[in-house]
Amino acid sequence: MELYVGYFAAFMGTVCWVPQAWKAWASRDTSGLSLPANLMFLLTVSLWFCYGLMVGDWPIILANFCAILIVVSIVAAKLRYK
Amino acid sequence: MELYVGYFAAFMGTVCWVPQAWKAWASRDTSGLSLPANLMFLLTVSLWFCYGLMVGDWPIILANFCAILIVVSIVAAKLRYK
Repeated sequence: MELYVGYFAAFMGTVCWVPQAWKAWASRDTSGLSLPANLMFLLTVSLWFCYGLMVGDWPIILANFCAILIVVSIVAAKLRYK
Repeated sequence: MELYVGYFAAFMGTVCWVPQAWKAWASRDTSGLSLPANLMFLLTVSLWFCYGLMVGDWPIILANFCAILIVVSIVAAKLRYK
């Protein structure tokens, strides 16, 4: 049971920023997005990715690799349309 | 070494949304924030909190309890100033 909750949490944590990335690029309205917050979140998922590589945990590696791509696109939209 | 990376990632993942919450309440500019993304992220940190309770892991419980408070405040700002 814990495993299902953990896997669902990991899955949600990866896909949840897709609507934000979509909105940022589609609306070009990024004034309300905090650049420091998104840069720190990019650091966070990069650290989890490194942690996954260090301990050889594929779910962590894959989830955070996807998260890095999504968060990079949010940061790029923020820098492009600020 | 892995443990330090993991703890630093957990710490960053908790504090990184403080600037976003601050910005949302201070500027009242939340039009660029995606409500679905933030609701899904609230579900994510709530699931991690439940997972922490289930496996009795205090760092996960504490980090995600703080994250829930911060993300609730972002969602509240989005609903208040949309």
